[in-house]
Amino acid sequence: MTSEKPMFERVALVGIGLIGSSLAHAVRRGNLAGEIVISTRSAETLARAEELGLGDRYAADATEAVKDADLVILSVPVGACGAVAKQIGPHLRDGAILTDAGSTKGSVMRDMAPHVPPHVHFVPGHPIAGTEQSGPDAGFASLFEGRWAILTPPPGTDPAAVEKLSRFWKACGSKVETMDADHHDRVLAIVSHLPHIIAYNIVGTADDLESVSKSEVIKYSASGFRDFTRLAASDPTMWRDVCLANREAILEMLGRFTEDLAALQKAIRWSDGDALFDLFTHTRSVRRSIIEAGQEIDAPDFGRHTEIGGDDN
Amino acid sequence: MTSEKPMFERVALVGIGLIGSSLAHAVRRGNLAGEIVISTRSAETLARAEELGLGDRYAADATEAVKDADLVILSVPVGACGAVAKQIGPHLRDGAILTDAGSTKGSVMRDMAPHVPPHVHFVPGHPIAGTEQSGPDAGFASLFEGRWAILTPPPGTDPAAVEKLSRFWKACGSKVETMDADHHDRVLAIVSHLPHIIAYNIVGTADDLESVSKSEVIKYSASGFRDFTRLAASDPTMWRDVCLANREAILEMLGRFTEDLAALQKAIRWSDGDALFDLFTHTRSVRRSIIEAGQEIDAPDFGRHTEIGGDDN
Repeated sequence: MTSEKPMFERVALVGIGLIGSSLAHAVRRGNLAGEIVISTRSAETLARAEELGLGDRYAADATEAVKDADLVILSVPVGACGAVAKQIGPHLRDGAILTDAGSTKGSVMRDMAPHVPPHVHFVPGHPIAGTEQSGPDAGFASLFEGRWAILTPPPGTDPAAVEKLSRFWKACGSKVETMDADHHDRVLAIVSHLPHIIAYNIVGTADDLESVSKSEVIKYSASGFRDFTRLAASDPTMWRDVCLANREAILEMLGRFTEDLAALQKAIRWSDGDALFDLFTHTRSVRRSIIEAGQEIDAPDFGRHTEIGGDDN
Repeated sequence: MTSEKPMFERVALVGIGLIGSSLAHAVRRGNLAGEIVISTRSAETLARAEELGLGDRYAADATEAVKDADLVILSVPVGACGAVAKQIGPHLRDGAILTDAGSTKGSVMRDMAPHVPPHVHFVPGHPIAGTEQSGPDAGFASLFEGRWAILTPPPGTDPAAVEKLSRFWKACGSKVETMDADHHDRVLAIVSHLPHIIAYNIVGTADDLESVSKSEVIKYSASGFRDFTRLAASDPTMWRDVCLANREAILEMLGRFTEDLAALQKAIRWSDGDALFDLFTHTRSVRRSIIEAGQEIDAPDFGRHTEIGGDDN
């Protein structure tokens, strides 16, 4: 027993994939909960979480896990949030904070809010953190270090609950930003959803060629292609749900991307070297800004060279 | 003086950017040349190469550099290969091997071949290696380690010259493959040129939005976007030239990519979760194959986590 009282008496983690298991590690490391209770739908995954010692208690039934928890975090695919909220809603403790880690916020609010009783503080959230790996083995305590967590409290949310959840994320290593759900969904559509969709698409295109073999694509992938395969290796269920849940914003961003690509294609067809040079120069500075903002490492080739060697051209 | 005779008496490096300077390091490390002579168009870059001690001799005039060289390597943007060949052609030594490092091979053969005298062995080449950085400071000896170098000797090329150049690349750390120029250009269009074009395009699209600010794109880029910024930070002159030189193959790959994207867009619009799930599952295995082929590191998030933290969702 530590002498300092943890931030929460009992944290319930519903869903124990990459995000849930990383939260378990971060909560443990920061002594942020008197007790960590873990629940997930799959008996196999729950058993694995127990083997890994991620929590203090494990419950096959989510209603059991959330009982008496003063913080409940859903880390499940966004398409499952509504059903889980419906299930656990009646069992949530008075004054509990209920949040999630989903990549879309409009759909989560729409699906969850009807099932949240008035005595519970519902503060949707989204840690902008992850890797291409999934499952309870993929988590690690430093996942949220230096990354942003976005909270989208609906109008009228108790500011004290938002503040407490914000402190929680900061204790996990995050920086915290608050915005409305609609804006979150537009921002994420361009910085995350479109990149994943494009990555999935190009990997699919390359895999379907008849004039270039799959083994050639693999062999020469260091020339650029492999950069896309990381995002295209992300969890399929999660990304199916994101596409369905943030459809409007994604379709808008896809429309803009496609327009720009048509213009670029035309410049290539008509050998308009100046237009190509202008675009290729313009985009170069963006990476520098990301490195300066501390959101990327300052090493060529993602720092991969230290292990295996080069890329592009 | 080492007791072993170097592979070449004199290697002339024309162009001293990322590839040229990496070759200088690799040639020095492997003791592959009795003398390294460096030439490049810009006086400033040549002075920098000399400051860095990349060669044994420096010549502002490429015709001077190639004199008596038994290996001449052009590492210049592919759009410049023809002009350089025209300039140096008459000054090439009897029996010299002339090669290049350009990312397109059909155009290089078309542009250079007419200027190569019959007593010179012309063996176009392309090391599938690089980083997003450019210039003489960007090079390092291990750039080619474990990467492929593709040679595209025209029919009738002296097999001994091909064999010698192949040994040279192997001594630089590369694995070597031979294929015809047309096939090279199709392969590279999908594994390298399309990925770069798509990356440039998406970074341009994100930079042009009015509903999401540039600073938001930077701030939340760890959710996927930043992966694209690396390719989009590559050398603009080089990539303009690639687009112009490999136009037909690139337009074909762009056409396929666009078709696939239209189908994906339709699946999103009609909420066809099964189609999305199928595609997203299908692409997941490609990354594993690339890691198994030794063309990617086996660490989540490109191994970036060791330095700064996470990505996606």
